[in-house]
Amino acid sequence: MDAARFLSCPEHSTRRQFLKTLSQGIGSAALAASAAPYVGRAALPDDETLGVALVGLGNYATGQLAPALQETTKCELTGIVTGTPSKAETWKKKYDIPEENVYNYETYDRIADNDNIDIIYVVLPNGMHAEYTIRAAEAGKHVLCEKPMATSVQECKDMIAACETAGVKLSVGYRLHFEPHHQRVMTLGQDEVFGPVTVMQNGFGFRIPDSATDEPHIEWRLNKEMAGGGALMDVGIYAIQGARYVTGEEPVAVTAQEYKTRPEVFSDVDETLFFQLEFPGGTVVDGSTTYNGSYNRLYATARDGWFEISPAYGYGGVEGRTHDGPMDFKSNVNQQARQMDAFAECIRHDRSPRVGGKEGLRDLEVIEAIYESIDAGNTRVEIG
Amino acid sequence: MDAARFLSCPEHSTRRQFLKTLSQGIGSAALAASAAPYVGRAALPDDETLGVALVGLGNYATGQLAPALQETTKCELTGIVTGTPSKAETWKKKYDIPEENVYNYETYDRIADNDNIDIIYVVLPNGMHAEYTIRAAEAGKHVLCEKPMATSVQECKDMIAACETAGVKLSVGYRLHFEPHHQRVMTLGQDEVFGPVTVMQNGFGFRIPDSATDEPHIEWRLNKEMAGGGALMDVGIYAIQGARYVTGEEPVAVTAQEYKTRPEVFSDVDETLFFQLEFPGGTVVDGSTTYNGSYNRLYATARDGWFEISPAYGYGGVEGRTHDGPMDFKSNVNQQARQMDAFAECIRHDRSPRVGGKEGLRDLEVIEAIYESIDAGNTRVEIG
Repeated sequence: MDAARFLSCPEHSTRRQFLKTLSQGIGSAALAASAAPYVGRAALPDDETLGVALVGLGNYATGQLAPALQETTKCELTGIVTGTPSKAETWKKKYDIPEENVYNYETYDRIADNDNIDIIYVVLPNGMHAEYTIRAAEAGKHVLCEKPMATSVQECKDMIAACETAGVKLSVGYRLHFEPHHQRVMTLGQDEVFGPVTVMQNGFGFRIPDSATDEPHIEWRLNKEMAGGGALMDVGIYAIQGARYVTGEEPVAVTAQEYKTRPEVFSDVDETLFFQLEFPGGTVVDGSTTYNGSYNRLYATARDGWFEISPAYGYGGVEGRTHDGPMDFKSNVNQQARQMDAFAECIRHDRSPRVGGKEGLRDLEVIEAIYESIDAGNTRVEIG
Repeated sequence: MDAARFLSCPEHSTRRQFLKTLSQGIGSAALAASAAPYVGRAALPDDETLGVALVGLGNYATGQLAPALQETTKCELTGIVTGTPSKAETWKKKYDIPEENVYNYETYDRIADNDNIDIIYVVLPNGMHAEYTIRAAEAGKHVLCEKPMATSVQECKDMIAACETAGVKLSVGYRLHFEPHHQRVMTLGQDEVFGPVTVMQNGFGFRIPDSATDEPHIEWRLNKEMAGGGALMDVGIYAIQGARYVTGEEPVAVTAQEYKTRPEVFSDVDETLFFQLEFPGGTVVDGSTTYNGSYNRLYATARDGWFEISPAYGYGGVEGRTHDGPMDFKSNVNQQARQMDAFAECIRHDRSPRVGGKEGLRDLEVIEAIYESIDAGNTRVEIG
């Protein structure tokens, strides 16, 4: 089936109907396999925004995504999914969300019938990403899923397949792809501006205080089923991502080590992990993550110089420098607003998202190899 | 034998004779084993300096130690040992060194008869440290030996034994023990000022360009017999030292990995190594060293904060900070001048050197365990 024919169908007279039908059209196997871009997206009015529903109203949705959606220009917050009625009431008032766009986990699938929601942003605990992404796809909605994409490689594959089958676009919430310092180091590394990158040191960690282990946003992080893993799944993944987008390559092997200083707190998930990645071009990466201390840095040395982002991985306050001096980006951007607008633009113009499902899958492949190395006594494990 | 009785001996009428006889006295096994401090060192005139002979007039002796010896107040450059007659001529003129204090490697042992030389500073390639330290001890001279102390644990033990037998003091050239930022992090770590240190990231590396491999100061570094190892022996050792003096503990286990991107250059020694150290108090250290890139940083995160020195390991330009802000040391000190004056003061007042032979020995134990882990397929090796 050729999706282009939808463009001239008279019944696609509204933007949302257009998108919905387009999604269904993309769902055909023939189309999913086609690399040919669609044409004629200019038919979509430029001043219309896509509707986003946030699924899971925890800290990140509340503190980052909802505020970011007040700054987006290509999409807007139109719906929410929450299991907590009091949260629903608060959000409805605060963000002027109509009752018909408020869902809970029983009514979630009915979003399929809601033309005011084009994108579902899955912000649930990691263990729920796969299910709610697949159900979003089945509802015909495009999906932005938070990182880690899922808790296993198999889940990632299932999610990608479900979105392909449904003909919806899938992106993973790697917000730093939309942050100028990170975009700069992608160029510096991939274009070998200072020669080939030889050694990287990427670390991200924060401390979970003993006193905070029963706070809601921490509690699920300590539960293997909900989180999929510990510091590695949560923040170490940034160090893996960083290594991959600086080199522009996929790691071929890894060694890893695990340490626990508070086994009573981290009985189910990892507290501190070191991992060492080998890339085919020769770059080696010294990676580190922890729930028992504070660090936040991407560093790369190359044949003819070095570059660094430190602090690297926060929502703001990112600072970068090279051997030549500071990276001079004037101000902090709203990473999440950029990310969501970029995804909306991909949908509007039917382009592949900058951060597709494979980005999430690749990181999970590395994560599984890291755990495999630890289980195998720290020995070298080949990836892929 | 009680060395204190030397103090009243009429024949010890000159400083140098006094020191020489004292050294011989300390040489007795009974005395070497005694922990009791000597008394009465005030008998040594305060305004006299000890004489230092530099053995090996390479880059470090030329660029750092000789200039530092112009700033010392407790010791001075009185002699040299070199196999290169033209160097001898240059140094004699530049530093006003009399012909009778100039030695080569054939005449080296005759320093025993030279009362103007109290301290021999061994600045030779690593593979020669043990021999020239032991011969210095046998000549009755106190010894400062550059890091790494030697190329094996056994050599370190032999050197310590030789100095004990000869009753001379032995110190290792870990200059950063005399640098204020490093002294501060020893306090921050060992006194747990921000709580126990949980994770450290210590890395030191520089790039040996392909074009420089036949330069004299590089050539020996690429030769296993002369250097004992590659980047690890040369600069990685700072990361090990740093971990040990921040924690104030000895590591109990290590894992390690080796990488080579230029095997044709590094056929004999290591190019890039990562190593992970476990300390008994729970600190884990992510260590890194290379001859294929530039980094130079000591970082520690603790329960209640963090501290960092970056750049950390240079002769100057050291900068430190904590989560509270910059470490406010007004100016760079001359690390080597401080180190040599401190050693001279230890000799004068018969105290144990701040950096004794055991400091060098412990690092070599870790280095041997790192190589063992690599040989064993990156598995965990217990130390000691």
